[in-house]
Amino acid sequence: MNKITIIGLNVIGNSIGMALRRANNGSQVVGFDPDRQREDLALRKHLSIDATAPDLQSAVQGAQLVIISTPPSAAREVLATLEPLLDDGTTVTDTLSSKEQVMAWAGELLGSRVSFVGGHPFSQTLDLETASESATPSADLFKGAPYCIMPSPGAHNDALSQVIQLAEAIGAQPRFMDAREHDSFVAAVSHLPTLASAALLHATTTGPAWLDMSGLAHEQFRNVTEPLSADPTALRDILLSNRAALLRWIDQYLISIQEMRDLLAGDHSEELLTELQDAHEARATWAADEGSGDQAGDKLRAELKQAINDSRPSRNLMGTYLTEQLFRRKEK
Amino acid sequence: MNKITIIGLNVIGNSIGMALRRANNGSQVVGFDPDRQREDLALRKHLSIDATAPDLQSAVQGAQLVIISTPPSAAREVLATLEPLLDDGTTVTDTLSSKEQVMAWAGELLGSRVSFVGGHPFSQTLDLETASESATPSADLFKGAPYCIMPSPGAHNDALSQVIQLAEAIGAQPRFMDAREHDSFVAAVSHLPTLASAALLHATTTGPAWLDMSGLAHEQFRNVTEPLSADPTALRDILLSNRAALLRWIDQYLISIQEMRDLLAGDHSEELLTELQDAHEARATWAADEGSGDQAGDKLRAELKQAINDSRPSRNLMGTYLTEQLFRRKEK
Repeated sequence: MNKITIIGLNVIGNSIGMALRRANNGSQVVGFDPDRQREDLALRKHLSIDATAPDLQSAVQGAQLVIISTPPSAAREVLATLEPLLDDGTTVTDTLSSKEQVMAWAGELLGSRVSFVGGHPFSQTLDLETASESATPSADLFKGAPYCIMPSPGAHNDALSQVIQLAEAIGAQPRFMDAREHDSFVAAVSHLPTLASAALLHATTTGPAWLDMSGLAHEQFRNVTEPLSADPTALRDILLSNRAALLRWIDQYLISIQEMRDLLAGDHSEELLTELQDAHEARATWAADEGSGDQAGDKLRAELKQAINDSRPSRNLMGTYLTEQLFRRKEK
Repeated sequence: MNKITIIGLNVIGNSIGMALRRANNGSQVVGFDPDRQREDLALRKHLSIDATAPDLQSAVQGAQLVIISTPPSAAREVLATLEPLLDDGTTVTDTLSSKEQVMAWAGELLGSRVSFVGGHPFSQTLDLETASESATPSADLFKGAPYCIMPSPGAHNDALSQVIQLAEAIGAQPRFMDAREHDSFVAAVSHLPTLASAALLHATTTGPAWLDMSGLAHEQFRNVTEPLSADPTALRDILLSNRAALLRWIDQYLISIQEMRDLLAGDHSEELLTELQDAHEARATWAADEGSGDQAGDKLRAELKQAINDSRPSRNLMGTYLTEQLFRRKEK
């Protein structure tokens, strides 16, 4: 029987366990958390794991797949601690939202006995980056959402295959990209909006007029500042974990604001309208596409799976395949 | 019988009519719109008016209160057209979301025969600035929301009293401020967030990476860009109508972003956390207060009403009263 070990029984770890157990693919799901109370909750309340283990060594011994679902701040230490405990050939994956850093740590700490495949699951119902560690887990958490997957350079094909199967078993849609690209994307669509909201709150709420004008802020203000409803420490850790990519996007954002400011200051009514129309249309197109799935991607993933199952392509062929087929832009 | 005339039977005009008729305070509500179809809808479907009129002159003849609820672009012309048609002593008010401009037009065009009292109603259920002209009206639209009121320098006390009564009759909470202050507040809590969202969409969606990364944008991205779901032409007109105040807030916003960028670039983890904590707390405090009403303001408004009814204070006393009692900051 396959053994899958989840390290870190937070909302992501528990939800993965619940979805895996519901998928009922014959694996045993073992959970490990330094907090015994969370292990008990996982075992008896969430029913997200089949068993616990007396220690980390027993937890990962004989496991084909180890899923690290800890807070970002604990990931480096967990990787270092795990290294001597893992069987040869184990597949290790993680669930962190910034990937360059953790991929570098894995390369540095894990060695070549095991295969590391980075992972970043999303949810359509919860912002997993900022969700409370103790948010209610659900077997449906990942349903229909992207699951970014990036094998480390030394990872075996079957390790990649295992993580693809994990993503599919929990109802997610595997997406393949490299870590730098991933981090830039997440910086743009998540970390930049967070920083922009924080700056908006800083600009408006710290002056003496805020007491008077706060009564005029309504639903829209609540929406545009929504990222700041999350725990500030978690936000700080997330922003810092993706600093380089975020800084590039902030500079881009500053240019965009300055451009719009100039149009406004110069009373360039037509050009301002064009900018607003473009923004309106980009958002409308995205909002209409969101949730419609990724048919082109589904087809490519099916082909890749077939290729892995049929011909066991060499790692190089696999690399070419990924590069050509999966890294390519989705057609409009 | 009191006659109240609503010019412009859009969602705001119709909702005011519906709320006034429900309040059933013995007034006759007459509606006027250049579009006869909208007059028919108001009269027969929305039941927002008691009667229409054959022309603008008949519509406003004998009216104690004329409410201008047109799009911003039509307001100047309506004021100019109205001036010779109004009876002496008529109270004129409007519903535009930027006030300095319309107050200046009223001062220039209306003369001293009539009293202009600027108004800006809000809604807790609809963003009135960007709502479609034909959105479904409701007698509850203004319930519990602020209604900003600013008498022009020459307005009579009873004109102010009439507009306060209008706001209260439709279930709103009168707030008193001057036009420049009002426009700065609205720029901060509404127009700056709109511009910030447009710039965010501009920065992220116009590059070649958007096709790939748009799949990773989720609910939070939808929320922070929500202002751009509105009609771009309406947004352009709104931003331009409040240009001076908005430019000042954009500059403040640019400083705030640059500050956060510096903290991030310098890896100033503690200071970054402090900024995020401040933003988080300011938002949480505001969100908890929102909808809790304005008890201090309620009391002051009751006192003002009493003073107007009892002693008919001279315009100067009234000014002092407003300055001392109503312009003062809400106590924490």
